Amino acid sequence: MKKNHIIWGLVVALVLLFPAGELLAQEAPWLRSRVVSPEVNPDLSVTFRLFAPKAEEVTISGSWIQEWGASETMVRNDTGLWSLQTAPLEPEIYTYSFTVDGVRLLDPGNVQVMRDGRRHESMVLVSGEASRLYEVKDVPHGTLSKVWYDSPTLDLIRRMYVYTPPGYADGKDKYPVLYLLHGGGGDEDAWTTLGRACQIMDNLIAEGMTVPMIVVMTNGNPGDVASPGEAPPRKQEDGIGGMGSGVFEKSLVNDVIPYVEAHYRTLKGRENRAVTGLSMGGMQTMNLAFDHPEYFDYFGVMSMGITDPGPDGRSWFQQVDERMQHLKDTGYKLYWVGCGTDDFLYKASQNLVDKLNEFNLEHTYRESGGGHTWSNWRIYLSEFAPLLFKK
Amino acid sequence: MKKNHIIWGLVVALVLLFPAGELLAQEAPWLRSRVVSPEVNPDLSVTFRLFAPKAEEVTISGSWIQEWGASETMVRNDTGLWSLQTAPLEPEIYTYSFTVDGVRLLDPGNVQVMRDGRRHESMVLVSGEASRLYEVKDVPHGTLSKVWYDSPTLDLIRRMYVYTPPGYADGKDKYPVLYLLHGGGGDEDAWTTLGRACQIMDNLIAEGMTVPMIVVMTNGNPGDVASPGEAPPRKQEDGIGGMGSGVFEKSLVNDVIPYVEAHYRTLKGRENRAVTGLSMGGMQTMNLAFDHPEYFDYFGVMSMGITDPGPDGRSWFQQVDERMQHLKDTGYKLYWVGCGTDDFLYKASQNLVDKLNEFNLEHTYRESGGGHTWSNWRIYLSEFAPLLFKK
Repeated sequence: MKKNHIIWGLVVALVLLFPAGELLAQEAPWLRSRVVSPEVNPDLSVTFRLFAPKAEEVTISGSWIQEWGASETMVRNDTGLWSLQTAPLEPEIYTYSFTVDGVRLLDPGNVQVMRDGRRHESMVLVSGEASRLYEVKDVPHGTLSKVWYDSPTLDLIRRMYVYTPPGYADGKDKYPVLYLLHGGGGDEDAWTTLGRACQIMDNLIAEGMTVPMIVVMTNGNPGDVASPGEAPPRKQEDGIGGMGSGVFEKSLVNDVIPYVEAHYRTLKGRENRAVTGLSMGGMQTMNLAFDHPEYFDYFGVMSMGITDPGPDGRSWFQQVDERMQHLKDTGYKLYWVGCGTDDFLYKASQNLVDKLNEFNLEHTYRESGGGHTWSNWRIYLSEFAPLLFKK
Repeated sequence: MKKNHIIWGLVVALVLLFPAGELLAQEAPWLRSRVVSPEVNPDLSVTFRLFAPKAEEVTISGSWIQEWGASETMVRNDTGLWSLQTAPLEPEIYTYSFTVDGVRLLDPGNVQVMRDGRRHESMVLVSGEASRLYEVKDVPHGTLSKVWYDSPTLDLIRRMYVYTPPGYADGKDKYPVLYLLHGGGGDEDAWTTLGRACQIMDNLIAEGMTVPMIVVMTNGNPGDVASPGEAPPRKQEDGIGGMGSGVFEKSLVNDVIPYVEAHYRTLKGRENRAVTGLSMGGMQTMNLAFDHPEYFDYFGVMSMGITDPGPDGRSWFQQVDERMQHLKDTGYKLYWVGCGTDDFLYKASQNLVDKLNEFNLEHTYRESGGGHTWSNWRIYLSEFAPLLFKK
């Protein structure tokens, strides 16, 4: 009887301490949990560990490895625990995965997982001054809402994310709005996970570096209802293929802006609207500046520009001169362009800057190191937002 | 030049079609994407596939396998593609993972990933009549918000999720509130992912099976600020250890209810408040019924009950008779108890029913098959919600 009691107590304690699925697993959680990975060391190097006694080769690929497609080989100890310690890393958010004998996997020791399009990665944050805006801090937090809205332009009920700043729920103030667009393969979720938009906005506002604003993160794929699994299955026939058609941009001004301004306490008029986006979202921002400049006073083009014509001689950007003239005639307060020197669209961003110069259009150009990466886009957001809505 | 154009166009197309990280990976996405997994077949069997040419053994464990800790061995073909086809499955949401030579991994072919506590699983939905309430349908959707609130009782700024029903954003109506509590190891995220609470509520409301209501999903671990990675690192000294102390329950009535009723259009009074939870959340629901019945008219205890005393002879539930009397004196509209016949807390749920009978307290008892699983808790929510707030 005594023994039964002890077993019973143990079972109850385990099931209440661990999620239900945990106990159904093949491996005992108390064994697996002995493997600490990742571990950020005092010198800001990171140690990764994986228990894989039968593996012949374990490698790790991660966003701190600069070389395209490169990975590093982990080292096995006597017990079958593989590990690797990086050099000291810059404070930043890094994503990574292991490859065991050719099979890619996440770090089972790490609860932090990020989705990038259709792929997941493990995540580790190396904390320091340079990463301070990305961290969750003891500052007032805004509210993030997953909102469904009607888009007659796209003939869809769609989902977007809306960030309302700290104080919104308790006050009566009206706020300006930043429309924040993701890149190809992403969706309405990307800026709040990989992009750390909520943390960046919370921290910028807390430090007084930016005015409080509403941030609207749409799904920029015109055929999508919502991110994977959040919508009924449907044919994506006009999904990302509709990227160059300008139809998403139309839906933003015709459907999204009216919805946001009807349902949130917003300041109206173009002087209270900004738009920025990366890669595909940068192209959409350029299109909005070309074709709908009367809606926005602030534009931010991240890692995008005027691409060279494709093999058929056609460019994605048609009638650039006429549309630049339209933008010039309409006027604006800020046209911001940011690109990394290693970005494969670096040349395109230079083309955009050249064209802005050709038309004597004022702009701010920000060149960073690095390439077509979220580490750049997080920095760009943290630098672009403070420039907005100044009186 | 022609060739350069073609390569350039290909690079642009790839980067815009795939997330940034995808191209930095070791393996080419167009190769990996040839592996279709999971595939739900017309007979509702599911085929799982993994490309692992160097592996000696690949197994799959999943929630359709009833036997505790069991897994099934996958079969290798000539090319190194491992596969397994299940028997036809009941329409339901299933979670699963692969194990390659002892190393556990998610299905790289499947974008659907769910977090259960500190662990991730791949997910597949087998569609059919029995799963219809869990699917995302073309019905009006409520809004899910991640809200930060002050909890003086716990001395923390904490996060909770709030579901407002379709129509909330456009109307002036006031709504009753369901407080929906997760289990041990879970957090404020669990009911909206594993529990499919938004889909269940959207679908129940659309079918007229329940009145529209606000659903509040707190973090039930009294030492937690928010789910992993969403809060600054802190010592969890009084985290889940504070489970039996009743302090979370105090914070719910002292802090959460006043916040919700001050910030949302709520109907007031106990007749407009319900609480239900699973496992640890079921214990908290029992405690709320014992100690704070004046706040709620509806209680739902899922997969929990009066546990037998532990090895030291102490029970988690002290002074049960006095507290039952308190509940009886206060009165209520519904006391609902649900448990699976294979649940390790089945006996405890019977003890609770016995005690309710002993005190002549009206209650509804729902016995299902299965065990301590989310498939039961999703069913329980879909059956409990329709019983609430009837005039």
